[in-house]
This record gives sequence, C-alpha cells and structure tokens, in this order.
Amino acid sequence: MSQPRDLTALIDPKSIAVIGASNEPYKFGGRPIRYMKMAPFQGPIYPINPREPEIQGLKAYADIRDVGQPIDMAIVTVPAPAVVGVVEAAAEANVKSLVIFSSSFAEVGGDGAVWQERLRQVSEESGMRICGPNCLGTLTPATWAIGTFSSMFDHGWPKPGGLTIMTQSGAVGAHILVQARELGLGIRTWVATGNEVDVDIADCIAYGATDPETKVITAYMEGCKNPERLITALKMAREAGKPVFCMKVGSSEVGAAAAATHTASLAGADAVFDAAFRQFGVVRVHSLEEMMDQAAAALVSPLPKGRRLGIVTVSGGAGVMASDEAENIGLEVPELPKIAQDAVKAAMPYAAARNPVDVTAMATNQFDLLREGLEAMLEHGKVDMTMIFLSAVGFSERIMEGLNEIFPAIRERYPDAIMSIAMLCSDENRRHLESHGYLICEEMNRGLRTMEALARVREGFDRGSDDDPLPEAPSDAVIPESLLNEFDAAQLLSRIGVPYPDMRVAATADEARAAVEALGGRCVMKILSADIQHKSDIGGVKLNVIPDGAASAFEAIMAGAAEHAPSATVDGVLVAPMAASGVETILGVQNDPVFGPTVMFGLGGIFVEVFRDVSFRVAPFGPKEAMRMIRELKSLPMLEGARGTEPVDLERLALMLSKLSVFAAANADRFESIDINPFVARGDGGVALDAVIAPKA
Amino acid sequence: MSQPRDLTALIDPKSIAVIGASNEPYKFGGRPIRYMKMAPFQGPIYPINPREPEIQGLKAYADIRDVGQPIDMAIVTVPAPAVVGVVEAAAEANVKSLVIFSSSFAEVGGDGAVWQERLRQVSEESGMRICGPNCLGTLTPATWAIGTFSSMFDHGWPKPGGLTIMTQSGAVGAHILVQARELGLGIRTWVATGNEVDVDIADCIAYGATDPETKVITAYMEGCKNPERLITALKMAREAGKPVFCMKVGSSEVGAAAAATHTASLAGADAVFDAAFRQFGVVRVHSLEEMMDQAAAALVSPLPKGRRLGIVTVSGGAGVMASDEAENIGLEVPELPKIAQDAVKAAMPYAAARNPVDVTAMATNQFDLLREGLEAMLEHGKVDMTMIFLSAVGFSERIMEGLNEIFPAIRERYPDAIMSIAMLCSDENRRHLESHGYLICEEMNRGLRTMEALARVREGFDRGSDDDPLPEAPSDAVIPESLLNEFDAAQLLSRIGVPYPDMRVAATADEARAAVEALGGRCVMKILSADIQHKSDIGGVKLNVIPDGAASAFEAIMAGAAEHAPSATVDGVLVAPMAASGVETILGVQNDPVFGPTVMFGLGGIFVEVFRDVSFRVAPFGPKEAMRMIRELKSLPMLEGARGTEPVDLERLALMLSKLSVFAAANADRFESIDINPFVARGDGGVALDAVIAPKA
Repeated sequence: MSQPRDLTALIDPKSIAVIGASNEPYKFGGRPIRYMKMAPFQGPIYPINPREPEIQGLKAYADIRDVGQPIDMAIVTVPAPAVVGVVEAAAEANVKSLVIFSSSFAEVGGDGAVWQERLRQVSEESGMRICGPNCLGTLTPATWAIGTFSSMFDHGWPKPGGLTIMTQSGAVGAHILVQARELGLGIRTWVATGNEVDVDIADCIAYGATDPETKVITAYMEGCKNPERLITALKMAREAGKPVFCMKVGSSEVGAAAAATHTASLAGADAVFDAAFRQFGVVRVHSLEEMMDQAAAALVSPLPKGRRLGIVTVSGGAGVMASDEAENIGLEVPELPKIAQDAVKAAMPYAAARNPVDVTAMATNQFDLLREGLEAMLEHGKVDMTMIFLSAVGFSERIMEGLNEIFPAIRERYPDAIMSIAMLCSDENRRHLESHGYLICEEMNRGLRTMEALARVREGFDRGSDDDPLPEAPSDAVIPESLLNEFDAAQLLSRIGVPYPDMRVAATADEARAAVEALGGRCVMKILSADIQHKSDIGGVKLNVIPDGAASAFEAIMAGAAEHAPSATVDGVLVAPMAASGVETILGVQNDPVFGPTVMFGLGGIFVEVFRDVSFRVAPFGPKEAMRMIRELKSLPMLEGARGTEPVDLERLALMLSKLSVFAAANADRFESIDINPFVARGDGGVALDAVIAPKA
Repeated sequence: MSQPRDLTALIDPKSIAVIGASNEPYKFGGRPIRYMKMAPFQGPIYPINPREPEIQGLKAYADIRDVGQPIDMAIVTVPAPAVVGVVEAAAEANVKSLVIFSSSFAEVGGDGAVWQERLRQVSEESGMRICGPNCLGTLTPATWAIGTFSSMFDHGWPKPGGLTIMTQSGAVGAHILVQARELGLGIRTWVATGNEVDVDIADCIAYGATDPETKVITAYMEGCKNPERLITALKMAREAGKPVFCMKVGSSEVGAAAAATHTASLAGADAVFDAAFRQFGVVRVHSLEEMMDQAAAALVSPLPKGRRLGIVTVSGGAGVMASDEAENIGLEVPELPKIAQDAVKAAMPYAAARNPVDVTAMATNQFDLLREGLEAMLEHGKVDMTMIFLSAVGFSERIMEGLNEIFPAIRERYPDAIMSIAMLCSDENRRHLESHGYLICEEMNRGLRTMEALARVREGFDRGSDDDPLPEAPSDAVIPESLLNEFDAAQLLSRIGVPYPDMRVAATADEARAAVEALGGRCVMKILSADIQHKSDIGGVKLNVIPDGAASAFEAIMAGAAEHAPSATVDGVLVAPMAASGVETILGVQNDPVFGPTVMFGLGGIFVEVFRDVSFRVAPFGPKEAMRMIRELKSLPMLEGARGTEPVDLERLALMLSKLSVFAAANADRFESIDINPFVARGDGGVALDAVIAPKA
C-alpha cells in the first residue's frame, strides 16, 4: 500500500532557495523573490545564480551547494536541459523539497521524458520531495512562502485561513485562487502539482487531512496515477472530518475509450470516479463556482444532521421556488410540528405556518415578525437547515441596520443552526453576516444546493464511521492463472457466497441423460469450454432438455463445437436446471485501471443497455455500503416488486455483493474481470446463471 | 379564443393619478409621487385625497372625477373596503388603466372575493385595464412612469433599455429587477400582476411581443388562468423573434395532486408546462440567476445557428472542463476542419488545434497568439459559438489593455459570432467587452449553459416558422355526449387514422363463433360495455379463443358481467384477432386544466410506470412536432429496434399522433380523456388494442 508522503518542507518551508534567480522582477526567476520581499517571507531567501553576486538586493550563490545552510525548499526556474543537474546538486545539498517551474518534460516526450524519469529517481533515492516539473507551484499565505511565478499577486493578495486548494492544472488553480481571494476566503495553502513526478494530488489531500490549520480541502483533478494513495488520502480526510470538494474533469472523453468486455465498457472511469467519491465521502462538484460556494460554506457553517429544510420567506412565490428546488436536490420540506406552527400563528395570524413559513413583506418593516418566525422554526421546527428569503431588501441601509441587529442575536441563541439567507446586499453586509455563520446567497437555489452539499459532507463522514465490517472470504478462494471454464468459475464463486444451481458436467451422452434425470427432468445444456465465449452462436446452448432429448442435445452441442471451434479445449457439457423466474440482473467486477477492483450491479436487458442504470463501488466494501449501492439504481422499484413480482431479498443481495467485493479485492492482481450475467434475483436469494472470470492478461 | 388586451395606457401612461395620495413620502400612497418627482416623470401627476388641498407640493383633488383631464393610469392605494368605490369613480372618469396596490381581496376570501369579482365586472364593462389588486405594480424607466410602492429606488435606479420583466410575485419581481439593475441591464418595463383580476401574465408577454422597444422578455409564473391567451402570447413573442425566458414554479406540488385516470396522473401540470414551453419556443429557466444570465446574453448577443461549440483556452484543463459540460448540456465539440487546425499550427506549432484549441498561457503574454487562435476558429472552424477561457488574467490591467484592443477588432471582423469569455475581471472591463457583444462569465460552465440557452431560443424560433402543417381531420369525427363502448370508440378513432384490427361485435354465442372463424380462428374476446372499465377483473376477457371455444367463452363472459356488473348496459362481446408482436406503447390525450387537450406518448409497462418516461404536447401540432415529441423519449432506442426487434415506423407514428392532436383540439370541449393503451407500435404502423374515450363530465 503506497502511503502519502510528508509535504511539510514544501508547504511550510523555513528557508527558500531560488535556482535560476533573476534580477528581472517579472521573469519567472525574479517573481518569487520579488513577491516574497513584498509580502514579506520571514525566513532566509537564497538566490542561486552563477553570474550575479546579488539578486534583487539579496546575496546570491553560484551553486546551491555553496549556501551551507539548511534549505527546506528550492524553486527551480532554469531551462529544462539544465534541470537534472541542479536537482542533483540540490539533493547533494540536502534540500528537503523542490518546486520545478520548468516545462518540456514528460508532456513533450523525448529527452523531456528521460529527464523526468531521472528526476523521479533522484527524488526516490534522496527522499527530496519534488513538486512539478511544469507546475505553477505553491503558496502559503500564513508565512508568505511563495513558490509560484503566477502573476496573480500583481492584483491582490489572498488572506491566510483554513482553505487548502490543490490543483493539477496551473491555470485552473490560479482561477480558483483568485476566485477565493475575491470572495474573501482565507487560504491555508495552494499547491499546483503539474507533471507530478513525485508529489501528487493524493499527497496534497493527505497533507490537508493531517494539517491542523486546514479546515476544508478543494481539489481540481484531471487524472490519478496512484489510486491506492488517493483512496488512503480520502479516507484520512474523512477520518479527520475535513470536507473535500473535488472537481474531476474528463467525463466526456470516457465514452470514446473502447473497452474489451461488456462490464468494462460500462465501468467507464468517470462513473467509477463518481462512485468512489461518493463511497469515500468526497463531494464532487461540477463547476468551480459550486466548488467555491461549497468550500466557503463549509468554512463558516456547521454541518446539517439531516436533510430536513425549513423555509422562512417574505414572499410566497419564493417559498414555492425553494420547495421545488428542495425536491429536485433531495431535501425534505416537512410540515412543521403543531407547536412551531402555533408559535408562528401567535406572532402573525395571517402568516402561512406549515413550511414554508411566509412571514410576508411586513416582516421587512417589523423585524420582530421575522425574528419570531425564524425562532419558531429554529426552536420547534425540528429542521436540519433553514433558508431565509429576504429578496432585495439588503440594499436598504435602514433594513440592514435592523437585520444586523437580529441575526447575530439569533446566531447566539442557536449556535449550531445551519442558516442561509437569500438576499441581494453589499459585500460588506454579506461578510458581516457570514462572520456570524450565516451563508449568504444571491440566488436562493444555489444556496439550497450549497446546504445540500453540506448534508452530503456530513453523510460522507457518518458513512466513514458507520459499523459496516467486511464479511470474511475463504482465504483459499483464489483465482488461478489459467482460464476457468464455466463450471469451475461457478464452483469458485459459489464458495464466496454466489448461489449457483446444482450443476453437472457430462462427458458423454449417457452422462448427460443421467444428469438431466438427476436434476429434475427439464434442463439447460451448455458447451463447457474456457475457450468458447459466445456459446449460443455455435449452437452450444439447448434449453428445456428432457431426459429423452438429452443424448441428441449432447451430440448436437459437441458437433457444433467441433465444427465452429475446432481448436477449443472442450471439457464436456454443463447440465443445469432451467432457471426459475425472478428479476434478471447483471453483476460484475472490473479491475479498473484507476481504482482497481470495482463491483458493478444493475438490472439486465434494457435497464443496462438502454438506460445505463448501473451502480459501482470500489472493492472491498461492507454490506451496508452494498445496500446503498443497490439503492442508487433508478430501477430499484423493479427489485422491490413494482411489476407485481415477488420482492427481491435485498439484504442477501447486499451481503453477496459485499462478499464478492472482498473476494475481488483479495484477488486484485489475479483477474481482469468477473461477469455473472445474468443473476436472477429473487426473494430466496436468487441464482446465478453464468460465470466468466477473465484472469490477468 | 381569448385575445391578449392592450396595455399601452398601463405601461406608457402620459398622465397618472394617485388615489389615496399621501404627504408621507414613505407611505404606499406617498412613495409613487415621491419617486416620480425625483425621477422625474414628465406628464401630469394628479394626487387624489379628499382631506388635503396639496400633496407633496402638487395640487390634490378630492375625487378623481374632479380632475377633468384625461387620465391614462390611476394608482389605487386606499384600504380594500374603499377600493370598489374609487374604482367605479375611476371608470366614470374614463381612466384608461388602474394599478391597485391594496390587498385583502380574493387571497383572503369572504368580502374580499366579492369585491374582487366586482372589480372584474367594472373592468369588463368599462374596458378599463386593472393591474392587481394586491400587486407591486408597474415601472417604465424610459418615462419614469412609476406605478409601484416598492422601496427599491431608495438604493438605486434601473436604467432604460430593452428588457421587459413580467412577474406574478411582487417580492420575486423586485428581486429580479434589482438583480437586473445591479447587472446594468436596461429595462423596458416591469409589471407585477398580483391577483390578476384583469391584466395577466399573458397580456404582459403579448405586450412585450408587439412593443418595438422590448428586445427580451422574462416571466416569473406561479400559475395560469387563461392558457389560450398564454399560448397566443407565446406564439406572438415567437413570431416577433422576442426571446422569452420563463421561471415557472410549483413543480413540487404536482405530485400531490391525485388525478382520476392513469393518463391524468402522468399529465401532471408541470410536465405539461414543460412541454408547452418547449413547443412554443419559451426557454424555461430553473433559477433567477439563470434567467438573468440568459436574458442579459440575449440582449447583447446574436443567436447561434446550431450547437457546434469552439473552445479557445489558455489552459488544457479548462478545455477538458468545457468539453465535459458541453456534452452534459448537448453541445457538440467538433474536430476543427484541417484548414482551421493548420492555421492554429502555423501560428503556434506547440498548440493543441483539434478543438479545444489550447493556445497555452503564452497567449496571455503574446496577444497575437490569442488573436490568431481565435481567428482560426472563427474564420475556418465552422462552429456556431465560441468559448474563450482566459482564467484570472482579467484582473491584470496590463493584460486587459491588450485584450481591450484585440477583442473589439475581432468583433468588427465577425459581427455575427457568438462569443463568450470566461474570466475574472473588474465590472468596468466586463461591461466594456459586453458592449462589443461578448458574453462575459466568471464561471465557464455557466457561460456554456447560457450559450446553450441561446441555441434553444433560436431552435424555438425556427420551430415556429418551420413547415409543419396540421393534417386534416374528418370534420364529422365528433365525440358524442354519451359514453362510447370500446367498439364505437375504436371506430371513431380509426376514422382519424388510428389503426385498429378488424373487430366484430357478437350478440350471441353463434355470432361469437362465426366472428372467431371469420377473423382467422384465434381471437381475443372482451365484454363490450361502456359501463365496465376493468374488464379483466370480472372475467370479461378471454384470450386465444378458437372457434370451438367461442360459445363457451361467450357464455362465461356474459355470465361474469351479469354477476359482477348487473346494472351495466352490455352491448355484446367484442371479438378481435390476437395481437401480433411489437413495442407496447401508450397513447393518450388529457384535457389538461391549464392547456386543454394535451397528447401523451410513451412506452408501456415499466417505461411508464417505473421510469415515467413519457412525452407531452399541447394539441394541435403537426407531424414534425410529433416526431420531436417521440424523439424526446429516453426509451427511443426501443422504438428504433434496440433489442433486436423490428424498428417502428416513426414517421407513421408521428403522423398518427399529429392527427390525434387535431381531432382532440377540434373536440376540446367534448371529452375529458382519450386512452389508447396499449398501442402496439411496429414497422407496419402498428395496431391499437384498446380504446377508451371519457366524455366531458
């Protein structure tokens, strides 16, 4: 298991060298020094330049080995061909970490790729952490350790705080940082990882997870080279109670990536990312705006315990709008308890009190009405979060004076309430109310989506700590290197809890007849060969075979195989009872290139082929997680008996999926894919009708 | 057909009276006068107050009948019990229009409802237009005709322009207006309609459609009392080429509204609103933010001719982000023609040229590169719209100077290009680029959604003018008042083009046997009675009847009816051939309480019951619209032969739906619902297996 690396020297360096330091304040080698002198950075800065005795007023050194002092971080700005040399020198000088701005490495190939591989070796041998190459670098506002050449400080400085921003793209990362600055969010640290020869996004998330100053983490991701480390980092963040808001791009490319098996083509990496994020408590955002909304909210607000939304509004229309959006995004708008409605009615007999509580426009003149409506909601409403719609009144100074009085007082009485106010107001008033833990939104629906995201953060944390132990898998259930035929694959899978019917292998026509008789007299017969994938195409499947027909069916199957698959090793004919009715489902495990064994479940036929209604989880997972996986399906009602069929035993199904995940994880390096298609789900636990295990190529 | 009313006197009054005028500048009766004096309004203002000779420095009149001058609009601010009296007086004084602020009318019931009904009568008799009661009123910035008591002018004035804002909610409307003001959008007029005793949202949209100053219309709707007028207004806007962006709330209440028939419960009003908006070219927005984004864009930008998106970016990551979102919202990101890629490569050999065109961060230092990349896209890219991602560079004054030079020049060369720039910059720079027809967004995905909305506007306009004539329906195909049995209903529907199999009615066992023989010897037999809905429940359906079984099946069916439905009028037994295979679909027409006859189509079984995958259109519509209706279904692949079945003849199906819509529209006042369930769709046009027509109750 690859563990995240310690980034302390990179993120909180006490001393910084700049290799390729420049006297030109706008050059890449000049900017970090200029910025750190302006900020200023409190520790020593060592410019490295063989041709200048002094850089921007600081004593310069010809070589980093000449400094003779401990160096936590060195910034490398020399052209690509010179980088390996200075990096080796830095390693000799015991520099603890590097940020390499220089580009033209693996991203251009050729020599660049060779150089990058050498950087990797140096990092591995020396333990020196390397951020980059081809990266926009790092920033830590608390100390003004500035390891970036971004020009963003030319138009403003971010303030220190609890938000840790990780990004694989420099330009997008700069956009995020400037957005955060403009919103007034405090930044703990910002790291743009570039080519990720060493330090990757997972290390950064892990750092944020253990760093006491980090409160909230955002990550912009394009890919993931080390999923184990990523999963470890996400689990660390969840255990530390640090919300992670992640923008993962690349979903639209996935469709193009053709994959070998049916399951694989469904397990398009993006759907797996989606599932993995949900599984490990990450909130996936779909725009940078969402990322900022949600990160900003998580910085100031407690997390809601559930999804019950209270609405207090000065406008009936806005109450309807909020109710609509709540339903869209899965928040409940429960009718308030009688005691809460009575409290509203006592203050405002004309008000709607059911929820939404419509305190009417009068409340913008008589603030006591707003206060009483809101307090009735908070005191008696039994809601987990509250949206307060005040329209455009925030631009009225007279009204804001009143609001600035009542809202802080209400916060004092209800320190744990999650409250969002939808109104138009000045930035100053917005920040004032935010400082009292209110979430201010111009667009109410965005505010609702933000609170829903906070609920998901909480659910993710809860999920991390819920009691969902992994079932045990027989330790000798091991996928062999050789290809298994259907019978052997079924035997292996039945040992880990997948129910198969009683099946027989017949090597002769007589054995086939005996098998049909023994199994009740009405059977399916299938060619048994690890080499034959599409049995029906060569006449290798016969249905409804009765004892008298067994011999001729056997002969026909063997003849078909001999004709159409002459080179296949045929192990005989598989005889099994005809399946009972139930819901046709499809189970599979795909050894995902990013996340490793990933279990897939869905209904068969049109559900998977037309509606693509399948659910994924990274293995291993417990039965509770498996149940959540099942419950994500849009076609869930079909399993619950929607069409008058017997309901499926979902608990048993979940346990089976969980056991399959444990087996798959234990055999992670031994298989490409496992397909159980179809699996007939039923009230009695169901039955599998096929088994294909593709070993590691 | 109810036609929209003329609102000229309400929206562009030349003279304004205020009934209940007040010297207190912050009272409802004082505010409009204060604001109009500040603005100022150029025409005469007549305060009406029996106790004051002068109001806010203006000569006051005791009664509106004393004014003796033409009055285009009178604002009514007196308490509810006094309103009817002053309104009658206004009608006597030939006032052309009224805005009634006063509340406590239909919304509280009792006397209020009676008064409101009297207002309706006065309006109808006098032709005096009434906006309200219980409304926030009107505003027209070009003349500063201010018929509102909103306090919003205390913190800023909107500027005149081309955006017409209509709202059924005062508070939400104020929110929208202040948002528009803060965004710097120019307002043509703003009307909040309140209780809509007379002037309604449809009148307002129709006014905007014909008003030469209106360029774009936004509407906030909670309901619709006169759908004919609404449809007329929407068609007028479409024909005038005025984009309408509509926020319709109330979707979440619909689920609760139980309805009698299966079709009715699916035709939840919100889904019908959705379909009607699409059908008549309205863009439905789902937040006020979206409304403002899209309205602002429509004010400055041309409309795209298609959905092909070009992306020019300084960051590869942002290009991926844009491609993802494009796929999500149905925009294409086509590979650029070779000539365009060559042009990019000629300027920047290192650039990605396929689309997205990644001009890299170098383009923010060398603006020529950005210009060349963008011109290659515009000149040779054959795209309909372009997104330009520039990250946070807009805060750099040095960079903005360069951008402010190249962008206006590019606009001059490509006056019709639809271009959005995603960047963070000052409001001043944003407005400067907007004045050159660029759409500026902080959040790129929002910018993409905005351009997609503009594409929908264009598609709506095109749809309005496309050649899609209604098929003719036989003029004597009329739904009778009496309940039809299945045979008669099928006869009627087959005359308008719904294919039914050859069917016979048998009154005796002998006739039943003869019918089965005549129809080929394998039939379904069903009890024939307009009074029996659930035939199977009483043993009224027999399948696979052969001639020898016909007599006993007949007797069994009749006996079942006699036992379980003794009071039903039985017309005999219906004999029909067993259906051939095909795709089971469900057709229906619901006489929607809002939009009248609305055709529904979807696949049967789980598709309708579990996935609710049905499509609606307001009748009547042509075959092209019917084809769009069919193509909206998620289960469309099932009709196209996804599961190896014969593809359905979609053209014939569309023609049938269109004919059904014409028939339904012609019979709008004669039926509640028409159900053809199932209809077996096939390559040969298909066959209907049931027919229920519920006449008007």
